[in-house]
Amino acid sequence: MYDGLKGFREFYPGEMSARRELTDTIEKRVRRYGFREIGTPALERTQMYVDKSGEEITEELYAFEDKGGRGVSLTPELTPTVARMVVEKGGELPKPIKWFSTRPFWRYEQVQQGRFREFYQTNVDVFGSEHPEADAEILAVAADILDGLGLSTGDFEFRVSHRDILGGLLESLDSDVETTDAIRAVDKREKIDREEYHELLLDAGLTRDEAERFDEVLGTDDLDDLAAFAETDRVEAAVENLRAVLAAAADFGVRDRCAISLETARGLDYYTGVVFECFDTAGEVSRSVFGGGRYDDLIEGFGGQPTPAVGVGIGHETLSLLCQRAGVYPEEATETDYYVLTVGDTREVAAGIARDLRGLGHVVETDLNDRGFGDQLSYADGIGAETVVVVGEQDLADGCVTIKDMASGEQTQVPLEEFPPSEGRPTDDEEN
Amino acid sequence: MYDGLKGFREFYPGEMSARRELTDTIEKRVRRYGFREIGTPALERTQMYVDKSGEEITEELYAFEDKGGRGVSLTPELTPTVARMVVEKGGELPKPIKWFSTRPFWRYEQVQQGRFREFYQTNVDVFGSEHPEADAEILAVAADILDGLGLSTGDFEFRVSHRDILGGLLESLDSDVETTDAIRAVDKREKIDREEYHELLLDAGLTRDEAERFDEVLGTDDLDDLAAFAETDRVEAAVENLRAVLAAAADFGVRDRCAISLETARGLDYYTGVVFECFDTAGEVSRSVFGGGRYDDLIEGFGGQPTPAVGVGIGHETLSLLCQRAGVYPEEATETDYYVLTVGDTREVAAGIARDLRGLGHVVETDLNDRGFGDQLSYADGIGAETVVVVGEQDLADGCVTIKDMASGEQTQVPLEEFPPSEGRPTDDEEN
Repeated sequence: MYDGLKGFREFYPGEMSARRELTDTIEKRVRRYGFREIGTPALERTQMYVDKSGEEITEELYAFEDKGGRGVSLTPELTPTVARMVVEKGGELPKPIKWFSTRPFWRYEQVQQGRFREFYQTNVDVFGSEHPEADAEILAVAADILDGLGLSTGDFEFRVSHRDILGGLLESLDSDVETTDAIRAVDKREKIDREEYHELLLDAGLTRDEAERFDEVLGTDDLDDLAAFAETDRVEAAVENLRAVLAAAADFGVRDRCAISLETARGLDYYTGVVFECFDTAGEVSRSVFGGGRYDDLIEGFGGQPTPAVGVGIGHETLSLLCQRAGVYPEEATETDYYVLTVGDTREVAAGIARDLRGLGHVVETDLNDRGFGDQLSYADGIGAETVVVVGEQDLADGCVTIKDMASGEQTQVPLEEFPPSEGRPTDDEEN
Repeated sequence: MYDGLKGFREFYPGEMSARRELTDTIEKRVRRYGFREIGTPALERTQMYVDKSGEEITEELYAFEDKGGRGVSLTPELTPTVARMVVEKGGELPKPIKWFSTRPFWRYEQVQQGRFREFYQTNVDVFGSEHPEADAEILAVAADILDGLGLSTGDFEFRVSHRDILGGLLESLDSDVETTDAIRAVDKREKIDREEYHELLLDAGLTRDEAERFDEVLGTDDLDDLAAFAETDRVEAAVENLRAVLAAAADFGVRDRCAISLETARGLDYYTGVVFECFDTAGEVSRSVFGGGRYDDLIEGFGGQPTPAVGVGIGHETLSLLCQRAGVYPEEATETDYYVLTVGDTREVAAGIARDLRGLGHVVETDLNDRGFGDQLSYADGIGAETVVVVGEQDLADGCVTIKDMASGEQTQVPLEEFPPSEGRPTDDEEN
């Protein structure tokens, strides 16, 4: 009778269990670095996004006027909200501030593979450190997440660059170049054809000759060559910073995941230093899975004290595609440790057993539909129960229950006082 | 520079850790009953809510037109969405369908204590069982959640009734009563004064004499008296069903949490059978914390096969108030197992130690700000680090690190090859 909205999804239990496992794995790894979870609202003032990204952002916002006449939008990304939070309380908090969160965001976009109008991201950010260790820790935690998901070095690489290298190279040219337009062109480089790409560079103010030289130098990963080519302080400083971040990444054990790749520009204008993208290297079409980088000016732009910042936003949809292609996406399954089956008037005892098993941390179902033996057994099978505890009137007369292992089909009678055994579910982490 | 919207909140790490613990405890208990997590969208078609609750619902919806001209709303509750999901796939799924989810909802309401425009709920529902065991399991899981949070019997009670008892009593009167209006009046009974309440009953069609007799019989908790008073099949059947649910609740170990309370009506029109509310009995003002009940007609009303249903929606805001009043609200704290402190040029070794400790599941921070010994130590103290591992050049020359217990202040030197000890964080539940 009713249908859902295009680009919005419902997740039934099988699919949801895989998504939950993905999220849990990501968050567990992130927490180990001392990133702390924050909670953020789904609605913000539209003006905040317009100020940050320009009027054209409203094209893809779910923007409307609320009943109090406020211009509001469903949040399309996390960064402006956390920036607002840092501005508000940043002065009281010890630095570095290390925050993460997982939640949905919304953009009115064309729906395609891996892109929806409601999509999920884990954002991880460090505020208050300008040092290369902060950049390197973001690279390290991103790599650790991918390790945790079962991905190996062959499945992905981080393509790392520095925003000032591109900017500085463009600045070192003789022509008067629109840097932002040129960087946007570089960001599109892999998605459009060569001719179109060169057109965009010419539109940005480069001569055809400059465009070709620029294109050539982007291909290098020799930082010495690069600094020599540009011969400007800006490029030299950027190269030095990139070197320092890569050295820290080496100490943090993730240098081998990183490739220098100067054409990695990130589409967003607010980046100021090291930027990186995670690429699916084994996929037929090499594609960007997620990205991040340094954005030292944003907090000040939001009215706060100057506060350096670096972070990564991990989109779950593209990450799931990477995991699926690599064959490590979590299984879509529902788990049940026990089904307690009643035969005859044994509900009270069966319920007591179920309660004891749950107290030990197990996932336990019992009959809610007044069904017979066969129907209960096939329901137990349907929900993937590992063990069925048969509580029959005859069993109880013998002071026993019958334990059926669903994988082997083996049945054993166990005295009531010995069941359940007192040890808990092995993967259960704490009492409540 | 920017402010958040009224009724919408940001949660900084301390507050968020308490909220996360609350949610984890709720979900852990719910999972043990075999309820499976589902995921649902934040936006739905406005028409779905209008059809279910009438045009006046739009007053409190965040409703707008999207860029495709669709009338959409931020979801104010879960039930219509899960009903839609059951209609769509219910035929393929084994019954009972047992689902849960935790997420925010949105209503444009007056902001007051425990009520926000963005609020969080865990919804738990059983679809496809008309039997009293399903109602009782919902009561049992709700009680189990409260137990898990550390609440005891004295802190709360479930006030249980049956929608047809009220309806049947009203029907048994001589006057022509508007049942829905009368039930709404009963639902408001505790919130308004006696005179106003009686006015509402008169407005609903009762005579003054009927209103008084009706009011009196509502005060009873003797189900025999009640059935005798009404002498109608409808009330008799309702009383019988309520008895059966309470008997199942007794077997499920939660009868002692339940009080019969006929004035518990629930404000919503779609309930069809047993309804209940959890009351904060120890609070100065006895107030409803959350509620639930049976709604057997909704799925059919949404165009599906007739599918009995019973569930509960647990609002985290009022539940948190209950926990706070009972002194069991989780501590607002951030935990850190280790801070690895570098002195001099020891970053590589320190990073290796941090990596090993994280591999064992610990929460570990290291220096990201190029700080000296004292500043690192006070940062470690600020983040509540239990243990500081000092990696100094002199230590390393001795092949050692220094372990400082932050609670006792005790320091010991440990050979590098013996640190970290190989056992993991005790509360860590699995490798990834």
